[in-house]
Amino acid sequence: MNTEIISTGSELLYGKVLDTNAKFLADNLTKLGYNVTGIHICGDTKETIGKNIRQSMKEAQLLIITGGLGPTDDDLTRDALSDSLNLKLEIDNNLKEQLEKMYFSREIHMANNNLKQVMLPEGAEAIPNDIGTAPGIKIVKDDIMIIALPGVPVEMKKMFSNKIMPILKNRNPYNFNFEELNFLGIGESNLAEKIAKLSLPDEVMVSYQAGKGQVKLRLKEESNQPKSRQSKLTEAVNMIIDNFEKYYFSKGEEELNKVVAMHLQKSKKTIAVAESCTGGLLSNRLTDIPGSSAYFTGGVTTYTNESKQQLLQVSKDIIEKHGAVSPETATAMADGVKKLFKADFGLATTGVAGPETSEGKPVGLIYLGLATPTEIKTYCLKIDYGREMNKWVASQYALYYLLRHLWQRGGILK
Amino acid sequence: MNTEIISTGSELLYGKVLDTNAKFLADNLTKLGYNVTGIHICGDTKETIGKNIRQSMKEAQLLIITGGLGPTDDDLTRDALSDSLNLKLEIDNNLKEQLEKMYFSREIHMANNNLKQVMLPEGAEAIPNDIGTAPGIKIVKDDIMIIALPGVPVEMKKMFSNKIMPILKNRNPYNFNFEELNFLGIGESNLAEKIAKLSLPDEVMVSYQAGKGQVKLRLKEESNQPKSRQSKLTEAVNMIIDNFEKYYFSKGEEELNKVVAMHLQKSKKTIAVAESCTGGLLSNRLTDIPGSSAYFTGGVTTYTNESKQQLLQVSKDIIEKHGAVSPETATAMADGVKKLFKADFGLATTGVAGPETSEGKPVGLIYLGLATPTEIKTYCLKIDYGREMNKWVASQYALYYLLRHLWQRGGILK
Repeated sequence: MNTEIISTGSELLYGKVLDTNAKFLADNLTKLGYNVTGIHICGDTKETIGKNIRQSMKEAQLLIITGGLGPTDDDLTRDALSDSLNLKLEIDNNLKEQLEKMYFSREIHMANNNLKQVMLPEGAEAIPNDIGTAPGIKIVKDDIMIIALPGVPVEMKKMFSNKIMPILKNRNPYNFNFEELNFLGIGESNLAEKIAKLSLPDEVMVSYQAGKGQVKLRLKEESNQPKSRQSKLTEAVNMIIDNFEKYYFSKGEEELNKVVAMHLQKSKKTIAVAESCTGGLLSNRLTDIPGSSAYFTGGVTTYTNESKQQLLQVSKDIIEKHGAVSPETATAMADGVKKLFKADFGLATTGVAGPETSEGKPVGLIYLGLATPTEIKTYCLKIDYGREMNKWVASQYALYYLLRHLWQRGGILK
Repeated sequence: MNTEIISTGSELLYGKVLDTNAKFLADNLTKLGYNVTGIHICGDTKETIGKNIRQSMKEAQLLIITGGLGPTDDDLTRDALSDSLNLKLEIDNNLKEQLEKMYFSREIHMANNNLKQVMLPEGAEAIPNDIGTAPGIKIVKDDIMIIALPGVPVEMKKMFSNKIMPILKNRNPYNFNFEELNFLGIGESNLAEKIAKLSLPDEVMVSYQAGKGQVKLRLKEESNQPKSRQSKLTEAVNMIIDNFEKYYFSKGEEELNKVVAMHLQKSKKTIAVAESCTGGLLSNRLTDIPGSSAYFTGGVTTYTNESKQQLLQVSKDIIEKHGAVSPETATAMADGVKKLFKADFGLATTGVAGPETSEGKPVGLIYLGLATPTEIKTYCLKIDYGREMNKWVASQYALYYLLRHLWQRGGILK
């Protein structure tokens, strides 16, 4: 069922606040099997809200509006509904009584403009608000269901979850089936070109999202079968993972550092990091996970050649001969930090984060060193996304190579 | 000038991602004096994007679209522009050459579908993308300027700031006058209550935004005078800084780590960091700034008591008597790391990031140590915002105390 969301509020148009309400609604509506076709943010005037309501009624059979139900002069959703649906506003005596009781019990003076909140378009139903003073509104007009909820996120979310979701579940028993797969080490267009060559089941739609040093692949199975009967999605997921094992690292919202942490914990191994170009980011990401002290023994950011020698025992010879940005230095750093913190793994980064070049080497040339219990491997990156992003992508690959090693040892992949 | 923003991407309609692009654009357009009348999120089909373009062209004289410029089959903004504006798509030979060069220099295979990205609607101008492969598009049709930018936030933001803002500044000479001041160590409501008592000029509107361990105060002077004639804003800014000197740290988007870096560079001092609860974040933030090797000599993340002793010379006695989370340990860590990396300043964090307690001490109890050339100071925080935010806020205060010290020495404030 097509659904549109309208968020009202000038603070959203000024770009002062993120519209988290619409995201929450879209996420939940999608999970319930509703097809969100548009999200519209508009200002606080009766005319613009009305225009958006009329426009969305052309597109959808369900319409959810947030904001503009409060008591002040710029709360105009109620009036916009009345105008655009041609329904008179009437006092709802039940609501009035409830509101008066609430103020009385809280021993607060009820301002006159609060009376606005007990008005409803004729034929509308009030949706109780257990936290705030503004009730929601439900109207069905020309077979289109319109629901207006307050804009305060905590009130809106509670009312939607407790009062609206049960209604919506009954209206639409068919769900989408959904999965997200995360990849690293392959570009969006390259991955898309290769996946287009697989014969995935026709029922499964594929879309991509690139960003922050990884590619997210979205798979959606649309069908008229209830959720339990759908299975083409699993087939597609398995096909893709089998074919792109080398690049795949997680499902859904599971971030790379979390996957790495999980595997370190599972295998009871410890890690220490030596960072030059990533400057502490790797250490920071590994310690973002609760319980990280179980696998993370320590890290050093060695920004000078002297500290690489002193703390990590990188020989002066290596640095003089090959430079600080070299596979040789990455190897020595990984080995040195593994020993320094008595860890099972040592992970090292050295490179040119930019914007200035270094040792005559180009920005974005980065070497990674991974010391495992039995050997030391090095990897080379050539990237150029600006300093902060270079640091991020280098940390992504460092974690990724570590993860691949853990997987190969543990034989766990899917 | 009325402006509409269109964000394309099914991931936004599924509620999987927050539309941070639209917020960024709305915020910047508002500052430039543009009147954002609507933000619309739509899916990835040519028809819906086209419908939204036509609809917004009825409302606004400036239209900014993000997303849908990539190389894959679901990137259809280009086609939607062509259809809805009735402009044929043509290959831009300059763009083609650039793209081929870029792929060649990065030694990557160029997929065939990348060629889509060198097509432009006739009469359109390409907006260079220095980071990614998708160029932006600028078209003027019926006196309406339409700008399409990629959806990847880092690319979009860079292109908007560097390429689009200069164009927009010229189109709209009557700006709001705008200033933002950033504060730390005082809550939003507390600051608001105190500022309400100052007699600020009537022309200046004040608003607040709390978040990420700081409070942002926005001052806006609205008038029909060209920017150069406005002056009440400066008066208000000076009044506020004079009264809240203790909490103020920067203007606008200038982040705390950048201010600290600037002052370290100016005073030609160096710093080293020893981190326990912040786990590398402090080191990461100090090295996010280009040229950080001038002032940052190194860092250690000492997650174990053993490494605190071995690397930082924190005595076993101190840890046994006071615990790792104590002012005594913070002091010894700051002193130890200053000596280890031969820096002018040593900055240390030790505390309970959570979610588990440690040494019987509560989550959010954090000690900071600052070793200056002449003395060692310690500070105590009691916070509770969840693990990642606790780490962030601890790093904020560590930088803040260092900054206050640099300011006192240098006598620079405004």
